[in-house]
Amino acid sequence: MNRLTNEDSLYALIKKWCPQPDKQVGIGDDAAVVKIGTTQVVTTTDSLVENIHFKSLWVTPTYLGRKAALTNMSDFSAMGAIPRYALISLILPEKYESEKFLKQLYEGLIAEFSRHIIYIVGGNISAGSELSITVTLFGTMHGKPLTRFGGHAGDVIFCTGYLGEPAYELSRLYSGKQKQMKALPPDRLRFSQQLAQQHLATSAIDISDGLSLDLKRLCAAGRVGAKIIEEQLPVSPALLSQKIIYKEREQWVLHGGEIYELLFTAPKTKLAKIRKLAEKTSTPVCVIGELLPSSGKIVIERKNGKTTSLVPQGWDHFRRK
Amino acid sequence: MNRLTNEDSLYALIKKWCPQPDKQVGIGDDAAVVKIGTTQVVTTTDSLVENIHFKSLWVTPTYLGRKAALTNMSDFSAMGAIPRYALISLILPEKYESEKFLKQLYEGLIAEFSRHIIYIVGGNISAGSELSITVTLFGTMHGKPLTRFGGHAGDVIFCTGYLGEPAYELSRLYSGKQKQMKALPPDRLRFSQQLAQQHLATSAIDISDGLSLDLKRLCAAGRVGAKIIEEQLPVSPALLSQKIIYKEREQWVLHGGEIYELLFTAPKTKLAKIRKLAEKTSTPVCVIGELLPSSGKIVIERKNGKTTSLVPQGWDHFRRK
Repeated sequence: MNRLTNEDSLYALIKKWCPQPDKQVGIGDDAAVVKIGTTQVVTTTDSLVENIHFKSLWVTPTYLGRKAALTNMSDFSAMGAIPRYALISLILPEKYESEKFLKQLYEGLIAEFSRHIIYIVGGNISAGSELSITVTLFGTMHGKPLTRFGGHAGDVIFCTGYLGEPAYELSRLYSGKQKQMKALPPDRLRFSQQLAQQHLATSAIDISDGLSLDLKRLCAAGRVGAKIIEEQLPVSPALLSQKIIYKEREQWVLHGGEIYELLFTAPKTKLAKIRKLAEKTSTPVCVIGELLPSSGKIVIERKNGKTTSLVPQGWDHFRRK
Repeated sequence: MNRLTNEDSLYALIKKWCPQPDKQVGIGDDAAVVKIGTTQVVTTTDSLVENIHFKSLWVTPTYLGRKAALTNMSDFSAMGAIPRYALISLILPEKYESEKFLKQLYEGLIAEFSRHIIYIVGGNISAGSELSITVTLFGTMHGKPLTRFGGHAGDVIFCTGYLGEPAYELSRLYSGKQKQMKALPPDRLRFSQQLAQQHLATSAIDISDGLSLDLKRLCAAGRVGAKIIEEQLPVSPALLSQKIIYKEREQWVLHGGEIYELLFTAPKTKLAKIRKLAEKTSTPVCVIGELLPSSGKIVIERKNGKTTSLVPQGWDHFRRK
């Protein structure tokens, strides 16, 4: 049996098999952009699966609803798109089959969706042995979508929010120091929609599988390299206030998944406008490095001034071995 | 724990919790119809889950792909809508994680989609312990969608295709008389799109959970009753050619699920046009009864001339007891 080695090679295969419509953003970006009539329709889908993305002991139904909403909204942020409607597909084992569980799950979904007037207009529920929540969002956009493909050598690399907390939390959950999952993806929609409408960014991706892996994807799409400055990485305050071994913290910050912050690039000339937008939308934004001409090569400038190669180690369901 | 008794009451609950956009078809019909910009966007989602909808021994990957495509296309048929794009969400246990399995699965999907120029533009793959295939279709429509809500007393009840085969096949699979699932949902898109565009039907639904249960849903939505004529029911040729106990055949024809034929209603004045359309699109169409004014009451006129009450017994995941 020809085992698949990782998620990216798997999507590349699927893309090869599926004919794609002309001049639209299809498989391989965070969301798809297609034309229906005269309207640009943006769509994405993402699942939370029991024992893969969470253990039932760690989560409340409301938390699951909020997280399922926010991970999908994050894909829209990566495109600067405007979500309008949602479909919710559940696989619901018998033990979850209560009005109370469902009500709290939907309360979580609606809490996040209502801030952006996203309506749940349908979905599907099936029995099954393992809980999963698949959200499909669709909506539209004003102007051109942000994609992974437009980065140029010399562009500044930006990152919203803070890095490392979800992976740190996961280590605490596994070691029993923490009982419940708390970290939730941020909502960067307003910021990213403006980023797209004002044509400030050249490329963007959301950090779903770790800074190093998603930066690699951004560089591969733009056929560029990157240099990250360790000193400038926005480490989550939760990690700074704790006595944590340097190596562990480094691992979580550089490679930890489930961050869902925005990683994007822009020419230096746009710096002032991006700072202004960040302030206006109360979005923490950091400069963390710059794009290099050397295709695919990613390096990190350490605090001691030395520059070393940065090998992606992010989260990948399919790299089990 | 407040256990949920059936799928319909579950969807009614969810509809109560979710604010709905004005004057659009949302939760509760076969597909949702919403406006994005000036375009009517139609969308639906449906899952095939291992051990609920199939056993892995019974199916080939290509069969699964074709069935996943066709069950979703059936929801579009029920609205007379035009599917344009698809997203594919997989939960993929390790044993299915091979290029061969995925390639055949996608070949099955594309075989059905390509007939209607439906592009796969995205999706998601997660690890998990149980195979599931969730297809989301979206597209558009010309004119008004067919819905469940427009039936009037006196309207003729129509049914496309034939009844009973999937349930019969299931009984043969369970008893070991048959090794592989073969029955596939029909493709009624061309017929139903014309039905909608020519304003021929007053209401429509696809028979996913059995004639009796889906007829009940159609009657409930239209606040009407129905009389079915047993003599006129289009029994699948596979059931006629076999020595089958009458009671079993009746069960499969009246209550068997997974049919995915179109059940629709129209005024008597449209009969000739519907016959012409059926001929033009090579669609088998039968008159099987008529709508009655008595809300929710469904009766069947037996071959012996007696009329008895028809109690819905269709397939429902959540009616386990």
